[in-house]
Amino acid sequence: MAYTIPRGTQDIIPGESEKWQIVEAAARDLCRRYNYKEIRTPMFEQTELFARGVGDTTDIVQKEMYTFEDRGGRSLTLRPEGTASVVRAFVSEKMHGWPDQPVKLFYNGPMFRYERPQSGRMRQFVQFGIEALGSADPALDAEVIGLAMDLYKELGLKQVKLVLNSLGDKDSREAHREALVAHFEPRIDEFCSDCQTRLHQNPLRILDCKKDRDHELMSSAPSILDYLNEESRTYFETVKAYLTAMDIEYVVDPTLVRGLDYYNNTAFEIMVEGEGFGAITTLCGGGRYNGLVEDVGGPETPGIGFGLSIERLLMALETQGIDLTAGEELDAYLVTLGEQAKEEAPKLLHQLRQQGFSLETDYLGRKMKGQMKAADRQKARLVLLLGDDELERGEINVKNMQTGAQEAVKLNELTDKLQKQNGEDD
Amino acid sequence: MAYTIPRGTQDIIPGESEKWQIVEAAARDLCRRYNYKEIRTPMFEQTELFARGVGDTTDIVQKEMYTFEDRGGRSLTLRPEGTASVVRAFVSEKMHGWPDQPVKLFYNGPMFRYERPQSGRMRQFVQFGIEALGSADPALDAEVIGLAMDLYKELGLKQVKLVLNSLGDKDSREAHREALVAHFEPRIDEFCSDCQTRLHQNPLRILDCKKDRDHELMSSAPSILDYLNEESRTYFETVKAYLTAMDIEYVVDPTLVRGLDYYNNTAFEIMVEGEGFGAITTLCGGGRYNGLVEDVGGPETPGIGFGLSIERLLMALETQGIDLTAGEELDAYLVTLGEQAKEEAPKLLHQLRQQGFSLETDYLGRKMKGQMKAADRQKARLVLLLGDDELERGEINVKNMQTGAQEAVKLNELTDKLQKQNGEDD
Repeated sequence: MAYTIPRGTQDIIPGESEKWQIVEAAARDLCRRYNYKEIRTPMFEQTELFARGVGDTTDIVQKEMYTFEDRGGRSLTLRPEGTASVVRAFVSEKMHGWPDQPVKLFYNGPMFRYERPQSGRMRQFVQFGIEALGSADPALDAEVIGLAMDLYKELGLKQVKLVLNSLGDKDSREAHREALVAHFEPRIDEFCSDCQTRLHQNPLRILDCKKDRDHELMSSAPSILDYLNEESRTYFETVKAYLTAMDIEYVVDPTLVRGLDYYNNTAFEIMVEGEGFGAITTLCGGGRYNGLVEDVGGPETPGIGFGLSIERLLMALETQGIDLTAGEELDAYLVTLGEQAKEEAPKLLHQLRQQGFSLETDYLGRKMKGQMKAADRQKARLVLLLGDDELERGEINVKNMQTGAQEAVKLNELTDKLQKQNGEDD
Repeated sequence: MAYTIPRGTQDIIPGESEKWQIVEAAARDLCRRYNYKEIRTPMFEQTELFARGVGDTTDIVQKEMYTFEDRGGRSLTLRPEGTASVVRAFVSEKMHGWPDQPVKLFYNGPMFRYERPQSGRMRQFVQFGIEALGSADPALDAEVIGLAMDLYKELGLKQVKLVLNSLGDKDSREAHREALVAHFEPRIDEFCSDCQTRLHQNPLRILDCKKDRDHELMSSAPSILDYLNEESRTYFETVKAYLTAMDIEYVVDPTLVRGLDYYNNTAFEIMVEGEGFGAITTLCGGGRYNGLVEDVGGPETPGIGFGLSIERLLMALETQGIDLTAGEELDAYLVTLGEQAKEEAPKLLHQLRQQGFSLETDYLGRKMKGQMKAADRQKARLVLLLGDDELERGEINVKNMQTGAQEAVKLNELTDKLQKQNGEDD
């Protein structure tokens, strides 16, 4: 029988995987320049970590987690996002004691959410993200946002829009929370049942509700920006000033609250506008989470980070016609003619590959014509033609696939010839 | 509360993750030279895929799988190894119809087995592997083995030993199977209950039993090599001749059967001997699996591949004292003195990072001495000293951390200065 791939997941196959490599290499190189180091956490964690670290009241925790018991009866959950795991690792590994603070980390790997699969929303998706833990300097907020914006810029993505908000500090949020409850409570029975639950649990998330977004109380809801205290306001102004100095444009949207419970002060999203991709799509979301390390059992530590989906980035690039295929080439394709030449091939290939050249050969016993076609399809720069006669003379024919020029080369001079060819092409 | 990492898993943190990057980059570069392209399959598959594709009678399927139901009631299993998923993808994506055959794929990613955690055996581990599907040419067997051996060689690992066997084709295996049953059946009650089950299910796996390995019938068991028919024998001889021509040493071990059910003809393991690592450890295992694509619902397609654990490779390198740390350096550390200089920092950093340089700065409001120490710890080549006075003059002080030399540079000439410095160091 044939087995199908699980719903909401995908195979990334040759022809596609090269694009992933290019995007991920760009992200890694940015992390080098910004001095973020890689961390890899397990694919699953104790379920309670996400309940606590992502937020009990979020859709993710309430509806979308892949939770299961292992054979030892422990409740484990496939990670739905990256931050909670990284913060757990920060605490487990006692990184708050490391000499270099803030600790600047990046990750890139699969995340899992049980959602209805749709364009740009997979059950397994790849998230690239960074986290900077141990500093509450607004310059760090600007750095984190700058890295994300640079990634899109370097890949050539256009119509990228940075949306910014401040959720304030604890005191500001509490004042805003009270104002929200006062605003919604009198007419809360006109809202969905989720919002009714949210009213006292986390009224900020009412603003995020998709069902009730057109209710008239939404647009008139009190803005967090009117409830920022002096400190939070100054913080926000400083972040904005840095972004301006860095030539990064933004718009402020006081309704931006993000889907996760743990943000404070800076919150941001990066969107792309464009046809064929829905009107507008969020590519990246992030913000500051100064209480999260404590929530997960560590010492008081400020933090900020973002996460972005590689799938959506690739979709956005494709929508804008930005071609990432690098036109990978083979240095040479070895064509063999005759029994002895065929027998000699593995040794010759092995030697040349050990010297760093990329080579392919025929493993289907094809005739010369079929082998030449394969060399052409695979974009080999050179064809190395080895026949029994050449072998006897210790020679091989080298054909330049671009010029068509062909010459006999001594087998012991083949390396030099390939090196020279590579030098000419570079 | 503090959350612990799930048992048998690990965080790979800065200081360690660089080693993973180096090993994986080496593997990827070998794949480029050998013309294997990347495939990424989901972390989980339908449970039945592994029951069928790995083998019902294996320990993996019987005891070690992370199996769970998703919210839709489907039975899913975290992948315990790479081959079954790749073969499923080969069928799903109809790769047998691709113009270039064999299809040569590599993968690198987490695998999951619920085992008792011990040194070199984690519940989540990273497997790198290759699969070549669509050719039964023994030269391809030699290529696959050659790539694995080259990886260890390039990383400098010593005392690496290739162990080789042939499990023959279907007819040879059936003849051997009958001989095994005849050999063990009369005294099967002296064996463990697992082996008693194996006798008629898959007697070859009795040879793999750890409990009964010292039973006298083990060493006298009929060897598969005595039951190879003409075709299988010739195939094996050809593979061996190619390996010899490629300067790859091997030993033949007729008891090597591998833990998975699906191998035929070539089977191999790569071991490393060495103290502090147990007497001997398997680093890599692979072989030919000509029936597997059909088993998984595809057309008759020969295949061969291997899988190796990155964890074990890193352990082996460490045991042999092979240092992978690349001594990562920062191009520069920006030290700021004074309010205005601090405010100028994000812009300057952003410009230089956009130009490709790696930079760090202080986010803790430390005094000059603390910032200089950080620059030293982080191995910055240069320190850029920006004070309010310098800023007013449009200058910055550049200090070479190796020579101690310091000079004032115009801010608009800083890029040239950094480029020059990088050129001198390279």
